[in-house]
Parts: sequence; structure tokens; C-alpha cells
Amino acid sequence: MVVCLPDTQDNAPNIPIELSRVGVTGVKKLLQLERNNKRPIILLPTFDAFVDLPNDQKGVHMSRSPEAISEVLENVATDKNAEVETICAEIVEKMMIKHEYAKRVEIRMTSDYMFVGESPATKNSTQEMAKIIAKAVGIREDGKVTISKSIGARVTGMTVCPCAQESVKESDKAKLLEFLDEETTQKVLDTVTFASHNQRGIGTLLIEVPEKHTIKGEDIIDIIQDSMSSHVYELLKRPDENAVVMSAHKNPVFVEDCVRNMMVKIVKQYTDLPDDTVITARQENQESIHRHNAFAEKVTTLGDLREELKEMI
Amino acid sequence: MVVCLPDTQDNAPNIPIELSRVGVTGVKKLLQLERNNKRPIILLPTFDAFVDLPNDQKGVHMSRSPEAISEVLENVATDKNAEVETICAEIVEKMMIKHEYAKRVEIRMTSDYMFVGESPATKNSTQEMAKIIAKAVGIREDGKVTISKSIGARVTGMTVCPCAQESVKESDKAKLLEFLDEETTQKVLDTVTFASHNQRGIGTLLIEVPEKHTIKGEDIIDIIQDSMSSHVYELLKRPDENAVVMSAHKNPVFVEDCVRNMMVKIVKQYTDLPDDTVITARQENQESIHRHNAFAEKVTTLGDLREELKEMI
Amino acid sequence: MVVCLPDTQDNAPNIPIELSRVGVTGVKKLLQLERNNKRPIILLPTFDAFVDLPNDQKGVHMSRSPEAISEVLENVATDKNAEVETICAEIVEKMMIKHEYAKRVEIRMTSDYMFVGESPATKNSTQEMAKIIAKAVGIREDGKVTISKSIGARVTGMTVCPCAQESVKESDKAKLLEFLDEETTQKVLDTVTFASHNQRGIGTLLIEVPEKHTIKGEDIIDIIQDSMSSHVYELLKRPDENAVVMSAHKNPVFVEDCVRNMMVKIVKQYTDLPDDTVITARQENQESIHRHNAFAEKVTTLGDLREELKEMI
Amino acid sequence: MVVCLPDTQDNAPNIPIELSRVGVTGVKKLLQLERNNKRPIILLPTFDAFVDLPNDQKGVHMSRSPEAISEVLENVATDKNAEVETICAEIVEKMMIKHEYAKRVEIRMTSDYMFVGESPATKNSTQEMAKIIAKAVGIREDGKVTISKSIGARVTGMTVCPCAQESVKESDKAKLLEFLDEETTQKVLDTVTFASHNQRGIGTLLIEVPEKHTIKGEDIIDIIQDSMSSHVYELLKRPDENAVVMSAHKNPVFVEDCVRNMMVKIVKQYTDLPDDTVITARQENQESIHRHNAFAEKVTTLGDLREELKEMI
Repeated sequence: MVVCLPDTQDNAPNIPIELSRVGVTGVKKLLQLERNNKRPIILLPTFDAFVDLPNDQKGVHMSRSPEAISEVLENVATDKNAEVETICAEIVEKMMIKHEYAKRVEIRMTSDYMFVGESPATKNSTQEMAKIIAKAVGIREDGKVTISKSIGARVTGMTVCPCAQESVKESDKAKLLEFLDEETTQKVLDTVTFASHNQRGIGTLLIEVPEKHTIKGEDIIDIIQDSMSSHVYELLKRPDENAVVMSAHKNPVFVEDCVRNMMVKIVKQYTDLPDDTVITARQENQESIHRHNAFAEKVTTLGDLREELKEMI
Repeated sequence: MVVCLPDTQDNAPNIPIELSRVGVTGVKKLLQLERNNKRPIILLPTFDAFVDLPNDQKGVHMSRSPEAISEVLENVATDKNAEVETICAEIVEKMMIKHEYAKRVEIRMTSDYMFVGESPATKNSTQEMAKIIAKAVGIREDGKVTISKSIGARVTGMTVCPCAQESVKESDKAKLLEFLDEETTQKVLDTVTFASHNQRGIGTLLIEVPEKHTIKGEDIIDIIQDSMSSHVYELLKRPDENAVVMSAHKNPVFVEDCVRNMMVKIVKQYTDLPDDTVITARQENQESIHRHNAFAEKVTTLGDLREELKEMI
Repeated sequence: MVVCLPDTQDNAPNIPIELSRVGVTGVKKLLQLERNNKRPIILLPTFDAFVDLPNDQKGVHMSRSPEAISEVLENVATDKNAEVETICAEIVEKMMIKHEYAKRVEIRMTSDYMFVGESPATKNSTQEMAKIIAKAVGIREDGKVTISKSIGARVTGMTVCPCAQESVKESDKAKLLEFLDEETTQKVLDTVTFASHNQRGIGTLLIEVPEKHTIKGEDIIDIIQDSMSSHVYELLKRPDENAVVMSAHKNPVFVEDCVRNMMVKIVKQYTDLPDDTVITARQENQESIHRHNAFAEKVTTLGDLREELKEMI
Repeated sequence: MVVCLPDTQDNAPNIPIELSRVGVTGVKKLLQLERNNKRPIILLPTFDAFVDLPNDQKGVHMSRSPEAISEVLENVATDKNAEVETICAEIVEKMMIKHEYAKRVEIRMTSDYMFVGESPATKNSTQEMAKIIAKAVGIREDGKVTISKSIGARVTGMTVCPCAQESVKESDKAKLLEFLDEETTQKVLDTVTFASHNQRGIGTLLIEVPEKHTIKGEDIIDIIQDSMSSHVYELLKRPDENAVVMSAHKNPVFVEDCVRNMMVKIVKQYTDLPDDTVITARQENQESIHRHNAFAEKVTTLGDLREELKEMI
């Protein structure tokens, strides 16, 4: 018995308005990216996929979006040069074909990403984790599709508050002056690692990737980690723990500084990217003295950033 | 012993760039809003508070933002007409004073909100919950602060898929035709409540509130709930459960329809709001047949919406 | 038209086995506890409710559990002495009546609880938050119901690592000895607030409440907070921040110490509780140097604890 | 300059009490399990690791636990027969050596696990996800370590409520009888797929694995999925969606039935497991008509279960 199943989605809706974004969220996949002469990169990405919907169509064909994701992922399985943001762009292309009515398609991806670190003193190898983020947006105009894509990461590190440290130093200085002269006190102040509050900070960075450019996720992870007081590590023997705490306290940073540090590193590292490259940097510190978090963010173009920093670079 | 604590934040930063948003996230408060002749409204809101930061200042005075929130909340405790979005606007005003360097201040608030519902058949009183959302953004230009504010809600309801229901109906129709004539079959089809997949759907709506207008959170909750196939309830006796399932299946909606329904209700209900009022409607259905969700969203102005719907209203 | 709705739950199941726990999870309520001469306590508790199910009954009457919760909460609204664990016990009693087949009923409750704190230096009033936990289990034997109940809390505080601090101190000592003699170095070591890693720690404590005893949630919150290096606060002016950081670093604690500190305080404070009182203490520190957490837990009876600590108390 | 870092953890604590569990939570790893003639299994497990601590030792050597996890995972990388619960047992063994004072060691592991499914009508291959759970507990007595281990899974499926469906059927029957005779009405009732509420259900199953037995994670996933009304799928074309909805509504189950179904399948499938094998089965349904969930659980031994089901098997 063949039943002709109706295609309710192609009907005109009773309420004829356009929708900005229609799609699926939370589509989880396994993705193994082959690399020449290196171990493959293993990701467990979660995808969101959206298209716009014109006012004369009741619904999108929902299943075509997870289908497009699956088809692209199967194809890249053997491509040794596939980058996550390029994969997102390919999904956008495929969705533009499957949703022929769409004028805008958006793909967002986020995935755990395991990488190998090295503990600071004992130089042990440690397995660390970051989130890799990628995004692609396609616009169809006059039958032609233009795609912009971005890559980014979210990484946990350690931040030490400079203000609290300065104030502990001042408090202790007053006590030291009770039994030391000014000069010796100053030498002690220059020597001692003063306390502060410190905590996990979570840095996020997203950079547009222009046509024919490649930005490595690993580099973005480095930029984020290096912009905080210290990296964090999953395995620290006692000398490592000492090294982390001491070096972090020699490099205290405000939540604002983390964003500024990321921005300077980007300007220095990506000299070949065009001025209209959009950059988003964000830092959220899980303050150890509060129940709430501290937050800083800058959204800018590389051109504006270069202008702001022209005296520094 | 008096120690002069240093004010590290007022220093110039080494990296002289502006920051878009600096502040605190996750500040939790208890808020009791008095109402004339009614039980007070109890909220446990969580606030995010942001200011921009010029390029010549190292850090914001972080503590001033939770301080501004506290001070405003203490004042409204006795104000019988305080609305959540007005409270956010007042916090923006206070933060503009405390952060005299800021050109932009943003407050976001979200809170559990308990309300009383009524079960559909037994008419029992039930305690239901929604999220209330409010937002205010202040811009300082030429010494003058302009504040825009919004109110919204996020509510869980039930959605029944029209497409799956139609296809079940077609399948069953074929079987009915094996022992019934066409006319009787059609009568059966018109009578029976056919199965579909159904699930929790989460609707979100945010509406700008122009100066001198008031939009009730309760009305927004109603709009969101009424745009799905059925409300959900915390207490349903058997006849209520039957009523919910039967009425929901008489009113199947796509995820896209939920957004469209919200939009029509807004156009009809808020005829006095100006054309430039910004509206965001979003629906996310936790599909019972998938592990992923279905999603739809429309961001528009009331003017554009009125234009789109002019033939309908 | 009256339709006789079937009572499917009372049928015998095809698979005749007992079930340990059947019920509802995540039932959210608003609860206002009146207090004599004090501001009422406002809670937004989430309840889980379970009964066991004999092997001859297909299903529980699910709606009776949220119904029992509602009915009890309506009654306590005017009771000036209601405690959360007593409320849980009353729900157990009501459920024993509604589920006449049940031999075991369990109620668990957890709620945000806002309380007023005071910043350590400026003595400003601050609004703080903890989770209040309560639990009651009823057992029916020979027609008689026995109920045991517990109260507890979960609170965020700050922990400073003693080991890392000691190792920073040793490192700095070596450098101080390069320009100071041993005696002066020792004086400096005794004076200075050395750095360590510090972080949010989350302490949880649950104590059985014997018949005719009352244990205050506020006291449990105090015990948990006082067992860490420092309380955390939502509003800290600069002198407060300094006081928190300095006092926390004078009181470094391992994750294990937090649990030990809670246990000593309990033995000292609750001298009138019987030996068979069950106590669970747990601490989880969100290590600022790792992505993972440190954890410690002790489950014991008050009698065993008194025995272990008899030389100390 | 060599600084001798102190070993604060080996000191005696001021408060001489034993601790039940001390360790780390949330240690995330990448794990690739080789399989003969098959694609390797890729997991991103999160580990918790605990030891007990005697009353004469201030702290555990925290870093030894993530170290033990790393060392075991490196070794299994090339073992073609490694099972997740065996890996947990090996970590327990290694921790027993590293924490020579420990009398009890516990390892818990949970991981996303991607597997290939097949859509029910179009027979398309689909990528599906479950959580794999494993656990091992070692006890040291008289110098000898005994380890018990368990494997389990958590899987999302679809559940259709039998009670609501029965009540819809009764309601519709009354209406059908207005224009059909009893016999035809009955034939219609037997033919039509009546509506009910349906939703995502999450089943969890954990089975002890006795020495020299192997229980496959894939089999546990099958048991859980097959105990609900239907599997869920990430990619469903229209005929598949129809098949899922229709077959699910032919197989309605209470939350209690899901647990019962798992138990029967276990008794039938694992006839060789000993009577003292501990089994935990749990089901939580995200009810589409409520904001709260329905829950059922049974904890038992295989022997008791066989006794309960002896008339059925």
C-alpha cells in the first residue's frame, strides 16, 4: 500500500510574514579531520543550522538541514586539508541548494577539542581541552551566493587581580616598615610574590576568515591562553603548581586586560588580514571573591583596531 | 593604621583601546514588587550590567555596578508601580552617574516568575512558571542620556506537529477505506483525534517599550503560551490531561507558526505602539522524535510587521 | 456528554515487578514562610517526589504527587513556625494517604535562599545567596508511618591552597636570604601575605533532624561558609576586597579541611542531637590552576564522629 | 637554585577524622579504543576519581589521580580489547598503588558515544548519540584489593502515554457512536492511530560486570532504546517520521513500563550473570504536558529480579 504523504510545508502560511531564521539546533556529530603526517584531529561538534523563510511558504523542510550537515561531513572525512570554518561554509553552500528559497543561510559549530600541553616545570605532557567555534553565513543576491566564515575558540585559563594584589602589597608594606628601612622594604616588595584573588577565566575569540586565508584554531587557542595570567593544566606536580602560581602572580591582569592582550596579539600576528575583518574578543572571570563573574568584550574590525594601536605596533 | 589603597583602575592602560562592554554577569537578587490591592510580585532576578570603557582608563570600578543595582532595588521596594523594565532603566541612569566616563550602559535581567493558572477541565488552580526578561540600554551623547528599554518572557508550552499528524491521517485513511465508503471515512477523519509527535516548546518574546508606554509581562506570557498548540500545566487531573491532549491536537503548529502567531497577536494587541518598536520572537521545540531541537525566529520592527500583515488585520 | 475515562494505572502490569521509586522531578513552587516579628522567608523551591510501586499496579497516579505538594504548601502559608524539612515531612504524610499502596515515600527539595550579609571592612549590607536543601523519607510498616527528615545547604565560598602558598613562601624565602639575614627573613615571612591559588569552593552539608529537634538553615549556612578560607560577597568596596584576600590567605584550607572543619563545628554546636544522626558533608573546589575540580566528602553518624573527635572536643 | 618544596599533604591534620571520598571531578580525556577489523571507538570521557583518606594524613596527593588516569589511558591506546569498565578497573588498581594509604578507590566515567543507526522507513544511515557510563570500586582488605566494576548507558528515546491515548480514544468513541454502529466503531477504533502526549524520555541502565564476563555497551544502548515507545533519530525523511510516530503510538508506555521493559530484557539476555549482580534502571520523561518530568527507578540484584519474574520467563 502506497500512501501519498502530504507536503504540508510547501503550503502558503495563513500569516504571510517572512521569518529571519528557521532551522535546527543541537545536531551532534563525530568528525575526524585527517592531517598529513600528523595524528587526525577528533571533534564532537554540535551544529546549529538556519535559513530564512519567505512569506509564501509555511515551513522549511527541516530534515534537509541535518542532511546537508551529514553529507558534507561524509565528504570531508578524506580531505586532508579540511578546516572547521571551511566545513561550515560547505554546509552553507549545500543548504543553499537544498533550500532554494533561502536568501540567507547560517551555520554555527562548537566542539570540544583536546590538545597536548606541557607542564611548566617538570615538562610533563598533559592533555588539555578547549572549545573550537566556527561559523559561516551565506547571502544569496541576484542568484549569487557570498559566504563569510569565522573561526574561534573558548579556553579556560587563570587570572590574578592586579588591584587586589597591589592593595595587599600596600598593606604588607606598612607592616614591613615597622621593622625595616624604606630601601630594604622596597627590595622585599620587589622580591616577594604577594597574594591576590585569582580564578578561572574563560576567554573567547572569534575572527573572520577572508577568502583564501587560513587561520589555525591552535593559534587562536594560544592567543587566548597567553592573554591571561597563566594557562591552566590538567596535571601539575608540585614544582609545576609552584611555577604556575608564581608566574601568574608576576603577570596579574584585569578582565579588561585579557581582551586588550588578545587584540594586540591579533594585530601583530595577522598582518596580512584585510582591514574589514571582524573580530570579537570576550573574557569572563569566575571571581573567587564573588558569586558573580567579571566580564569584558570588544567587537571591532581589524582596520579600526590597527588605527587604535598604531602608536604601539 | 591607615593604608592608602591604590586605585589601579584609574591608570591609563598600556594598550590604549576602547572596550565595547565591561561589567558583571550573574548578580542575583530578591525583588518584591508591591501592587495596589494585589499580592506583591516576587522575583529572584539575575542581572548583567555593562558599560563601555574609553581607551585611557585601565579598568571599570567593578563594584559600582552591583552597587547601582542594589541601590535601585532598595528604592523600588516601596514603589507600587515599578515595572521590571523601568527598574532596569533606573539602574542604567544610576550607572551613568557612577561611571561618568561611560557612553553606553546596558542592563539585562532575567527571573523566574510564578503565576497562577487554571487547569482546562476541572478548573483547578495551578501554580505555573515563566521567565521574565527585561533590558535597558542607555546612550550618552553631548551630555544627554537616552534610554531604550524592553520587556519580554520565556515560556514553556506544548506543540503538536501538523505535518506528522497529516501523514498519520493519510495512512489511517487508506486503512479505513478498506472497510468504509469515502463519505463515512471522511466523517471519521473529521471526528478522530489523530496522533502526531508533540513536545515541549519554549517561546521567547522581547518587545521594546517606548517612553510613556507600559507593556505587562503577564500579557507577553499569554501571547507566547497562546501561540503554541496548548499551554502546559503543573497539575492535571485525568479530564484535564484529556482536554490538553485533545485541544492541542486540534491546534497543531509548526515551530514557524509559533513565531507567526506571536507576531499577529502583537500587531493586534499593541495598536498604540510606534512603528519603530523593535520586536524579537523566537521558538525552540524539543522535538520528541529527535535529539536536536527545531528553531524559528523573527526580528523586526512593528512598522515592518504592520506592512507585512496589512491585508490580514 | 459524559465520557468515562479509563483508569489505566490501576491495571495489573504485564511485567509484575516492584519499582523502587516512581514520581515527579522538577516541580517548581513559590513558598513564603511567615516568621514572627521578622520579614517572611521567600523561597522558590524545586521538589522531587517519589513513591515505591507494588508489583500488581501498572502505574502511580502521577498527579497526586504535585497535588500533595500544592496542598501542603497552601496550608503552611499561614504557619509562622513552618520549617522546610517539616514541610517535606508533611508532604510525605499526605502522599502516604494519597498513595495508599506505597511503603516508602521520598521528598527532596532545593531552593535558592537569599540572605543578608555584611562586607568585612566597610560593613555594608550585602545580599547573598545559598541553596537550601531539605529531604524527608517515610516508611510504612504494619500500617504505621515513620518519617525521617534532613535539612542542609549548599554555599559558595573562597578557598586558598595551603600547599601552593607554602611552596611560594619557600621559593621567596630563598630569594630573601640573598639580601637578608635569617632572623629578618623569618620576620618578613611572618609578616607578608604570600600568594597561592584560590578559587570558588562549594560546600554542601546535610544533617538529619530527629523528632522534636530544630536545626536552622541559617546555622548550616554559617557552618559551611566558616569552614572555607573566606566567605564570598556580592558587593565589595576596595577595603573589603583587601580584607577578604588578606584574611583568606591567613586561613588557607585544603578541600579536605573544609569537610573536617564542618564536622568539628557540627560536633561542637549540636551537642543535643542523638548519636545515630546521619551527617553528609561535601566540598568541591573549582581549582583556579586546573580545568577540573577538587572534591572531598564524609558521610558519618554523629556518634562515630564524636568518637573520632573525642580527644579534641 | 634548588628550593625544597614542602609536602604539606603528608602532615597529620589538626582534626583527625577519616574522609570517605577525596579526589578530582571533571577530568576530561580523549580515548580511542582500537577494535579488530572495525573502526576504532572514539570517546571523550569525563572522569571522577576518589580515594578514602585515613585520619592521620592531611591531604591526598591530588595530582596522582589524574596521573593514574593518564597513564592507564596511554597504555590502553594499543589494546584491541579494552572495555571502558575494564579501563576504570585498571585506573583503580593504579590508584591503589599510588595512594598506598587508601582502603577504597572509586572511578566513575561518562562519555558521549556516537553510533550509527538506520532510519525506520527509508533505511538511511543516521549518526546517533548516547552516553556511555562506567564505574569501578576497589576495596583493600588485608593487603588484597578486590574490584567491582559496572557498565551502563544513558539514551534518549520517545515515550507515548498509554493513559492519555486511552482517554482520547474513549472521547472519540463517543463521537463515532453518534454516526456509526458499535461494530463499525470498534473496527475504526482498532484501525486508527489515536493521539496522546509524547515526549523525549531518557533511560539509564547500569549493570555490574562480574569477573570474566563482558557486557557490551552497544547491547545496553539497545535495551534502553527498545524499552521506550520508539527510538529517536537525527535524520528522518517524511516516511520515516510517519513510521516513528505510528509505531510509537502502537507501543505506548508509562515511565514505569520503561523500567520494567529494561528489567525483562536483562533477565532474558544475561542468563549467565550471577544472582548477586546489581542492576540499576532509571527512566525520566520530559512530559510534553507539564514543565516537570516523570520518573521511575528500580535498583535490584539479578537474583531478586529472576525471582520476581520467574512466572514470565
